[in-house]
Amino acid sequence: MKNTRQHNLDFLFHPNSIALVGITTATTWHWTRTFLEGLIEIEFNRPLYLVNPKGGEIEGRKIYTSLKDVPGNIDYVIGLVNAQIAPKLVEECAEKGVRAIHFCTAGFSETGEEPRIKLESELAEVARRKGIRILGPNCMGIYCPKSRLSFSPAFPKESGPVGVISQSGGNSIYLVRQAALRGVRFSKVISYGNACDINESDLLEYLANDPDTKIIALYIEGIKDGKRFRRILEEATKEKTVVLLKGGATEGGARAVAGHTAALAGSRATWDALCKQLGIISVSSLEEMIDVLVTLLFLPLPGGRNALLFGAGGGASVLIADEFESRGLKVPPIPQEIVAQIREFTPIAGNILRNPVDYSQAMMNTEGVLKTFAILSSWDGADFLITFVRTGQFTSSRISETWVENLLMSKFPIKQGLFPKPVAMVIEPSLMPEEAEAILAAIHSSIASGLPVYYSFATAANAINLVLTHTERQSKKF
Amino acid sequence: MKNTRQHNLDFLFHPNSIALVGITTATTWHWTRTFLEGLIEIEFNRPLYLVNPKGGEIEGRKIYTSLKDVPGNIDYVIGLVNAQIAPKLVEECAEKGVRAIHFCTAGFSETGEEPRIKLESELAEVARRKGIRILGPNCMGIYCPKSRLSFSPAFPKESGPVGVISQSGGNSIYLVRQAALRGVRFSKVISYGNACDINESDLLEYLANDPDTKIIALYIEGIKDGKRFRRILEEATKEKTVVLLKGGATEGGARAVAGHTAALAGSRATWDALCKQLGIISVSSLEEMIDVLVTLLFLPLPGGRNALLFGAGGGASVLIADEFESRGLKVPPIPQEIVAQIREFTPIAGNILRNPVDYSQAMMNTEGVLKTFAILSSWDGADFLITFVRTGQFTSSRISETWVENLLMSKFPIKQGLFPKPVAMVIEPSLMPEEAEAILAAIHSSIASGLPVYYSFATAANAINLVLTHTERQSKKF
Repeated sequence: MKNTRQHNLDFLFHPNSIALVGITTATTWHWTRTFLEGLIEIEFNRPLYLVNPKGGEIEGRKIYTSLKDVPGNIDYVIGLVNAQIAPKLVEECAEKGVRAIHFCTAGFSETGEEPRIKLESELAEVARRKGIRILGPNCMGIYCPKSRLSFSPAFPKESGPVGVISQSGGNSIYLVRQAALRGVRFSKVISYGNACDINESDLLEYLANDPDTKIIALYIEGIKDGKRFRRILEEATKEKTVVLLKGGATEGGARAVAGHTAALAGSRATWDALCKQLGIISVSSLEEMIDVLVTLLFLPLPGGRNALLFGAGGGASVLIADEFESRGLKVPPIPQEIVAQIREFTPIAGNILRNPVDYSQAMMNTEGVLKTFAILSSWDGADFLITFVRTGQFTSSRISETWVENLLMSKFPIKQGLFPKPVAMVIEPSLMPEEAEAILAAIHSSIASGLPVYYSFATAANAINLVLTHTERQSKKF
Repeated sequence: MKNTRQHNLDFLFHPNSIALVGITTATTWHWTRTFLEGLIEIEFNRPLYLVNPKGGEIEGRKIYTSLKDVPGNIDYVIGLVNAQIAPKLVEECAEKGVRAIHFCTAGFSETGEEPRIKLESELAEVARRKGIRILGPNCMGIYCPKSRLSFSPAFPKESGPVGVISQSGGNSIYLVRQAALRGVRFSKVISYGNACDINESDLLEYLANDPDTKIIALYIEGIKDGKRFRRILEEATKEKTVVLLKGGATEGGARAVAGHTAALAGSRATWDALCKQLGIISVSSLEEMIDVLVTLLFLPLPGGRNALLFGAGGGASVLIADEFESRGLKVPPIPQEIVAQIREFTPIAGNILRNPVDYSQAMMNTEGVLKTFAILSSWDGADFLITFVRTGQFTSSRISETWVENLLMSKFPIKQGLFPKPVAMVIEPSLMPEEAEAILAAIHSSIASGLPVYYSFATAANAINLVLTHTERQSKKF
């Protein structure tokens, strides 16, 4: 049964050909062009057809005036047509032997208007009758780098272990783009919208059985069949880590859900209880979801909650210790005998040899920093190390730049293995153009070294705490 | 008594001349050069002398080999000398008639080492004997744009209503630089460090009586005289809004405080109770402090907690409604008769006419947006309006750019007065260089229009909630 279902949807991710039907031919650039751009950018290497009754061409590619004029077979259609003619497109697709249609088209049940709710039912009904599966409507469809499917030219070409099911297109784009900046890569990302046919349970079942997917991230607004979803979710958590963001957890949010994908939201309490029971990491924002994914992927699991914080700035040291301890982590004191060893070669003025280690004055001294790391390595009181870059505390961009360059660009080989415990990096972004470039380079360099990168201590502490709490619960469970 | 005290410290902010003693003459750039750069940048227009036994010059400015060689009178000294010779510098200053010394120098009680704790006592004792006031040691000193004092070339030249007392130099720099980006301007900012002479109570008393200061922001690690501080704090809150960040609120943070400024931290419960009792807005991070300052300065006080959220993105709409409602604010539904009016000229597909208003498809249509604002103006269900820019949800930077430009750069005159209720703006920063510039321009343009700018919905909701809660408490108090 399991394999049948998997096989059922597997063809969605491996179409032999695609037609973009209803692609705009307007000379000015339109946002729906993103589907074409996405497929070109990811080097989709099977037949790709454009269809619009007006004909013409886009960048040298012929636009067919109707689906039936397309010379080859078509497996998969991306429907960008007006909602009113969507059912008719299904009929045309049936004649052409299409197996699945992703309807990007909006203007169905999410409007809350009776004729449009009916139109969606009609769409589902025609598809069922014709044996065509529908993804959507009102969604962005599939991103699967391995089979060269994408709906944005801004997505990475490389694959990774994270599978995403998102009811919202915008949220799936936000998640992929922002997580990609932090080094996260994806197996399959599916934006599924109103789910008039293929729904969250079908997709979850697919990802639960997908060997390329190790972590499943879910953005859910509402579910079609609670019992089935729960059963599959339970199954999924047995072999994979599941991270869930429930949209519409408040009254106002639930009303927004009704307007967005017409789903029933369900109370926050219900969802929280479910997550706790099934061992799912529950998050409350996309940013938090990304922080958790980064932690799961790049932070070797710490053996406990004791952090060693290493960076610069006395006042910052105080606040980051507070950030950590108020989020369930510990910042234990470094024993005097260890401090004494560092003190031997470190000027006392301007370098606070406690935890956090404020190494302001000595930070330019590569040798001293490496020696300090070596000495701190002998201390077994820390379960993980976090180093950090906070350029905002410097009096000028000149110092920030020098500091970032010294710390990250070449001199300090900060990476996993530098320290006998897991290592993470906090790099605070800067809006100031003269710093932004150095910071982006620092982020890239840290990611290339396999480090989890967080944008603040608060978010680092929060994500590490969530993952540790999850692990503790799991170990009790088994 | 009050006036005497004020007068007592007023001279600190209006020195007739300054000597930077111990400025490094090294050819490579050193961070202490920031004091000179700061004073030059802010156009300090009274005599400014450099002193270092090695002599020489910096960018054409003569370096005197000793203080007594300086030809003119010296009011105020910025001491950058080694801790060991600090007491001797006080003696030399006495001979020269110096009234106050700001000791940037670290390496005193904050090290926790007995000889250095004694050295600090000695420093304070010599100063007392000689009738010289000391700011510090271990701090950045004074920024006062009106009298052209600054310790960073990155600080604004214009004055504003916010006075800051910060035990930490790094935190004061972070606060000024990051808040300045959001339009906040300052009357006086004092980084006071170990407070061996002038302490937080003296400075608070001064700011409480300073006519240029309307809002007082405090970063406190520990206090020297609890009773006096409490009394002055109570006095200060009578006429000014006070925002307080207590560093060292956790065990780990308190240990960091001991290492940073050697102050006793005090429990979080004590401080929370104090803030509640005195009507102080208590914050837990510098970022939160900046959000509160932005709200106090730029958001006309909303009459209630009902928000109208207007922007683009269906999934984003759901999450931001959740962000708002989970932080004590409300996102009420827009009545059907109002929606119907907007519906008349707005395509239904891709535009969710609820609250949040997801206006994705119509956002490029200036006329429609303005008409929509006009119709929504007739609705009295919202106490304030928040519009937003989240470029991360778009599939390509090309769309982000077009969208940001359309929304903010020229076509939409978003400012206070656009809507009969207070207006705020959420602009999410982007690390992507191709978007960063447009976003920075959007931030600048919003600030120039007098809008409060927040970097996320979560932080906007949190700050607005804090200010509303504060106002509600104040109105009960009187």
